[in-house]
Amino acid sequence: MNAAFWTELPEAVNAIDRASMARVIVISSTGKHFSAGMDLAVFQNMGASYAGEPARRAEKSRRHILQLQNAFNALEDARIPVLAALQGGVIGGAVDMISACDMRYCTQDAFFCIKETEIGMTADVGTLQRLPKLIPEGLVRELAYTGRNMMSEEAKSCGLVNHVYADQKSLLAGVMKIAKTIAGHSPLAVAGCKEMINYTRDHSVNDSLNYMATWQSGMLQMPDVMEAMAATKEKRKPVFENLLPIDSL
Amino acid sequence: MNAAFWTELPEAVNAIDRASMARVIVISSTGKHFSAGMDLAVFQNMGASYAGEPARRAEKSRRHILQLQNAFNALEDARIPVLAALQGGVIGGAVDMISACDMRYCTQDAFFCIKETEIGMTADVGTLQRLPKLIPEGLVRELAYTGRNMMSEEAKSCGLVNHVYADQKSLLAGVMKIAKTIAGHSPLAVAGCKEMINYTRDHSVNDSLNYMATWQSGMLQMPDVMEAMAATKEKRKPVFENLLPIDSL
Amino acid sequence: MNAAFWTELPEAVNAIDRASMARVIVISSTGKHFSAGMDLAVFQNMGASYAGEPARRAEKSRRHILQLQNAFNALEDARIPVLAALQGGVIGGAVDMISACDMRYCTQDAFFCIKETEIGMTADVGTLQRLPKLIPEGLVRELAYTGRNMMSEEAKSCGLVNHVYADQKSLLAGVMKIAKTIAGHSPLAVAGCKEMINYTRDHSVNDSLNYMATWQSGMLQMPDVMEAMAATKEKRKPVFENLLPIDSL
Amino acid sequence: MNAAFWTELPEAVNAIDRASMARVIVISSTGKHFSAGMDLAVFQNMGASYAGEPARRAEKSRRHILQLQNAFNALEDARIPVLAALQGGVIGGAVDMISACDMRYCTQDAFFCIKETEIGMTADVGTLQRLPKLIPEGLVRELAYTGRNMMSEEAKSCGLVNHVYADQKSLLAGVMKIAKTIAGHSPLAVAGCKEMINYTRDHSVNDSLNYMATWQSGMLQMPDVMEAMAATKEKRKPVFENLLPIDSL
Amino acid sequence: MNAAFWTELPEAVNAIDRASMARVIVISSTGKHFSAGMDLAVFQNMGASYAGEPARRAEKSRRHILQLQNAFNALEDARIPVLAALQGGVIGGAVDMISACDMRYCTQDAFFCIKETEIGMTADVGTLQRLPKLIPEGLVRELAYTGRNMMSEEAKSCGLVNHVYADQKSLLAGVMKIAKTIAGHSPLAVAGCKEMINYTRDHSVNDSLNYMATWQSGMLQMPDVMEAMAATKEKRKPVFENLLPIDSL
Amino acid sequence: MNAAFWTELPEAVNAIDRASMARVIVISSTGKHFSAGMDLAVFQNMGASYAGEPARRAEKSRRHILQLQNAFNALEDARIPVLAALQGGVIGGAVDMISACDMRYCTQDAFFCIKETEIGMTADVGTLQRLPKLIPEGLVRELAYTGRNMMSEEAKSCGLVNHVYADQKSLLAGVMKIAKTIAGHSPLAVAGCKEMINYTRDHSVNDSLNYMATWQSGMLQMPDVMEAMAATKEKRKPVFENLLPIDSL
Repeated sequence: MNAAFWTELPEAVNAIDRASMARVIVISSTGKHFSAGMDLAVFQNMGASYAGEPARRAEKSRRHILQLQNAFNALEDARIPVLAALQGGVIGGAVDMISACDMRYCTQDAFFCIKETEIGMTADVGTLQRLPKLIPEGLVRELAYTGRNMMSEEAKSCGLVNHVYADQKSLLAGVMKIAKTIAGHSPLAVAGCKEMINYTRDHSVNDSLNYMATWQSGMLQMPDVMEAMAATKEKRKPVFENLLPIDSL
Repeated sequence: MNAAFWTELPEAVNAIDRASMARVIVISSTGKHFSAGMDLAVFQNMGASYAGEPARRAEKSRRHILQLQNAFNALEDARIPVLAALQGGVIGGAVDMISACDMRYCTQDAFFCIKETEIGMTADVGTLQRLPKLIPEGLVRELAYTGRNMMSEEAKSCGLVNHVYADQKSLLAGVMKIAKTIAGHSPLAVAGCKEMINYTRDHSVNDSLNYMATWQSGMLQMPDVMEAMAATKEKRKPVFENLLPIDSL
Repeated sequence: MNAAFWTELPEAVNAIDRASMARVIVISSTGKHFSAGMDLAVFQNMGASYAGEPARRAEKSRRHILQLQNAFNALEDARIPVLAALQGGVIGGAVDMISACDMRYCTQDAFFCIKETEIGMTADVGTLQRLPKLIPEGLVRELAYTGRNMMSEEAKSCGLVNHVYADQKSLLAGVMKIAKTIAGHSPLAVAGCKEMINYTRDHSVNDSLNYMATWQSGMLQMPDVMEAMAATKEKRKPVFENLLPIDSL
Repeated sequence: MNAAFWTELPEAVNAIDRASMARVIVISSTGKHFSAGMDLAVFQNMGASYAGEPARRAEKSRRHILQLQNAFNALEDARIPVLAALQGGVIGGAVDMISACDMRYCTQDAFFCIKETEIGMTADVGTLQRLPKLIPEGLVRELAYTGRNMMSEEAKSCGLVNHVYADQKSLLAGVMKIAKTIAGHSPLAVAGCKEMINYTRDHSVNDSLNYMATWQSGMLQMPDVMEAMAATKEKRKPVFENLLPIDSL
Repeated sequence: MNAAFWTELPEAVNAIDRASMARVIVISSTGKHFSAGMDLAVFQNMGASYAGEPARRAEKSRRHILQLQNAFNALEDARIPVLAALQGGVIGGAVDMISACDMRYCTQDAFFCIKETEIGMTADVGTLQRLPKLIPEGLVRELAYTGRNMMSEEAKSCGLVNHVYADQKSLLAGVMKIAKTIAGHSPLAVAGCKEMINYTRDHSVNDSLNYMATWQSGMLQMPDVMEAMAATKEKRKPVFENLLPIDSL
Repeated sequence: MNAAFWTELPEAVNAIDRASMARVIVISSTGKHFSAGMDLAVFQNMGASYAGEPARRAEKSRRHILQLQNAFNALEDARIPVLAALQGGVIGGAVDMISACDMRYCTQDAFFCIKETEIGMTADVGTLQRLPKLIPEGLVRELAYTGRNMMSEEAKSCGLVNHVYADQKSLLAGVMKIAKTIAGHSPLAVAGCKEMINYTRDHSVNDSLNYMATWQSGMLQMPDVMEAMAATKEKRKPVFENLLPIDSL
């Protein structure tokens, strides 16, 4: 994750999502490891910028961290699901990133590590905010306080990943199959699910039910339901329109 | 779940609960499957009511969905626990319903399916609001986006059901035994547990502790504790008074 | 948990934490069982104080419960992690206590019981507020409504404990090793993790990300990171300064 | 406010609102005073029901108060605005009621009194929950702690009432004129305003903006805007369709 | 506000409140001005403690500010109302303090000043957290950003103080009269009002109504109501029992 | 407010704020009226884009409104205060805009109008979300439901504007003087005030106090305080450094 990564990732995700270029995004990596996290160069630049009056530097530093966090918020804010296909090491900033994805899948040799603690700092781009909403809190605390590796099987049993595949080839095949299923559904039905699950995480059940009804009042229309029913009757795959592209103002 | 179901279910639950007619409710079903969800006729009526100026229709539609949601809120609002005993398919609206129950138990042949996505709409009567508070979020997303079936063993390992039974006979026997244990306890102690767990789900720990203390200030009295202690000493089952019936205004 | 326990526990935890006397606390117990919970004498005193006009008694009772709850809040409010090493019975008030610890580990013969229901009252010092944020809600409800024992293996698979050890000796060895790893890290990095995980539990992801950035603006400085990097390069253990002691006003 | 009042008020409001029988409700009263609050008979009945085991009575009492509160929630939950036209004494339960109305207007001789404190109890059907969101908190506290009367001019200057009229005749004329203006607007535009202001009171600005956009996505359609523009052009009053009636399930 | 003040104020308030020594507290001051705020010596000590590694110092500083804030939280947490009687300058830390009181009254020569901005820092012991919940936000911003004085009449018209008196003598006479009225009411009714108004400030109306009903279920009993009614009938002042003293654990 | 306005306003505000080019922004307008709100052309374009399948159009419309709202969020998110100097009509979208400013000042001939209701729609870019947090709710409702004009004196007495000036010349002179006072203070002290007041509006007092302490731990340093004290001693104006510019990632 070099300096360019932090602007290019959200730009790419936004571009795909806003133009309705795809119905699902799969993030994968090449090589032995998925990602070793933040490039040290980025970090050293940050160190270099530790100049000037400390209070003003702190104020600037706060804004800088918010910007870095926004790079991963883009994954959550996209209308379409984002799936992560992971092999080998998923380390430091990479854990922050995959915590912001919709679903995670990995190979048997995958492992996860909140590396930041070991290098003397508190992870600050999302791991400690999202992981406790994904897996048992007692385990998050152990991983964060000790910085130990969590192997793929433990990641599966605690709910961090949905499935463990033998190797990267079967991983990609498996994840692409899931992605294809999703892409075959009404993109509005899927986008509604994503919006609701995001919303529910941060709100009470009552608030979330009300939001659901309000959303649905405009977003549920008959065409997609009719198409789904017709397709079932005619024993064919349904064909759903894309979401509309979102123009800039 | 035909049209009558949506009014009869909450009326039945309210009637039992308000009159203190029982100390626990077990919801079970007959036949191969627990429930296939919303009767299509209800759905078609809704389609038929899609008439008139779109904005006013949307406003009405919002109120209509809130009414449907209220049918399942009754399960959560009851003072007494509601247990679901599930066999075969638990599909679409049935998932919304069981998510509002206190505990879920199933047979080995049970499976769960967020069917709505497949028929071109976002589930809107509670699944997306309650399921993410019951099982790992990454799994909820997969189930919602793909509409795939989740088998009983996966439902057990992710925490959706508490126990898997070999068949419906042993399921009912097992669930009734649990229900009997609950019915043998002080109904006020149990109602307090339910209120607190409901409350905690939607509030911070600090708020919930304060609410607990405020509740307990009036609800903890000596008679039940004395009876429990006396029963232990006398090696007999304790006998607790019912909750008082709640009259209409 | 006798009368003195409720003041001595928080005083001891606060004293250690404020004076930076340690970097991690391990709570363990001797004997066959970890703890049978509230001493009945405390309870009987409470019974004895059930005198006077009922409304004023209720007001006093509310304040009393808040004070009892505060004893366990001290575990959560400490800057340093608190680990619980559990054997045999973890019963009643003991479940309230361990729910407020950072992590839990136990022996194979350990079991957990929300005993309060059985003695005719709703547990009121934290179990019902914290347990639903640690393990699946459907299971919490069963444990609370029935008062049944949960064995160590189930406690592991549901996420309540992080690891099950064969016996108390290996338990203590294992937990002390984890504690040692934590104590070897930057105490500020660890304290930051604890504060963030506590905060995230009760706030939205957006609020938590903003809090993270604000915290980090002042708390992330270069010395610890530099020391960590130097130690890695020099293949030695890093040496981090203690947190500063907190004086009374 | 006799026993029948608590069921008849919400039934009447719901009936009008659900059937789209009106676009605005004005609540007024006859006689020297608007209302002296809860009929003592209701209160004495409540006293009479203070029987049985205290904890169960407390549980029942809690449900009873929630029912009484619901009577006034109906004013807030109606899709159409509810205006209160007040003369003379507005006392005890009447303050709870008018706090749940959209707007309040009064005569010069009107006065407001949180009477409950003086009769030895804490007001419990809405005054202490809604008044602090309507007028300065320091004033609410004085009114609640002392039980003193607040005269019409002070009620105007603190924002409780929007306008003070010389006498009841001019009050009714004035309020009916305001009501007529509201009834002349698009009922959907007005209902949207009410929903949003209700929502904003209890949510953050960010949450409220998001809710606004979601609501508007389905509720903003061209017909009403076109009619408003055409009417302006043609120098006539616009004619807007009613909201759709809401059927029972 | 010297160093001792910050521990002595909350100790005094807690002592009075817990022992039920009084039913209302009036805070007043002697001399030309109510208070010039934080003693500079306290501030210089804080400056002196700005030693050591910056991140650890920041962590300590955070805990120190939380302790200072707690001194004023004691005013809010007391069961009994706290009234402030103010003359002359109410400056800096004094504004933080009076914002935590229940009601404020002042002399004509009183003025209020968020002095901290002028001395180069953001006020940090409560002004910016409580004042925006007491007076219009646009005015709070002007006062905070400019540090200008607000005179008594403006303080009255914006709702910060409830009444302006000609001089300190009439101020004290007036405030004591209000205090006497409060002290003559049922202390439980008054404590309930305070708890509810505090709670409502930070919660939604729905949450607050539910809290009210739960509180009232135990706290509303007949004795105080009976005494109030009897006193009215017998044309005498009612006599209410004190709240019960709260013992330490 | 033409099409370009919605992108140019936030870009301008962000540019000034991020580059630390100023310490305060004053928004004023020329001509008889401050602003008549949304240009009808923007509105007609929106009408034109009402094409395609209604549900997808609704989804796009929601995103579009969120974008429009973001234009005004920029005023709130800026580190520096934004003051509005208003003359004549402040209509429709202009009310949404000024509600997002820190403070508002106006001329005697100014008036305010929630015009949207009159043209058949619910205001959707911030008025209904922010105005109820600025002025009494009963008044907001009247303004929103009736669409009537509110004159300058009423705007002053309800707290919407801080001061009414005779004419635009004295308005600008007055507001620039206030702006100058603000610009003379430590920009970090002022930015801290703004962040805290924004935060407090949407959070509980307890949360806000904790946030204050966390912010202050890094942002309070001695240089500004020392400079302020030295300047006082030396009877000169203090000179404070700018905030640091914020670079893009």
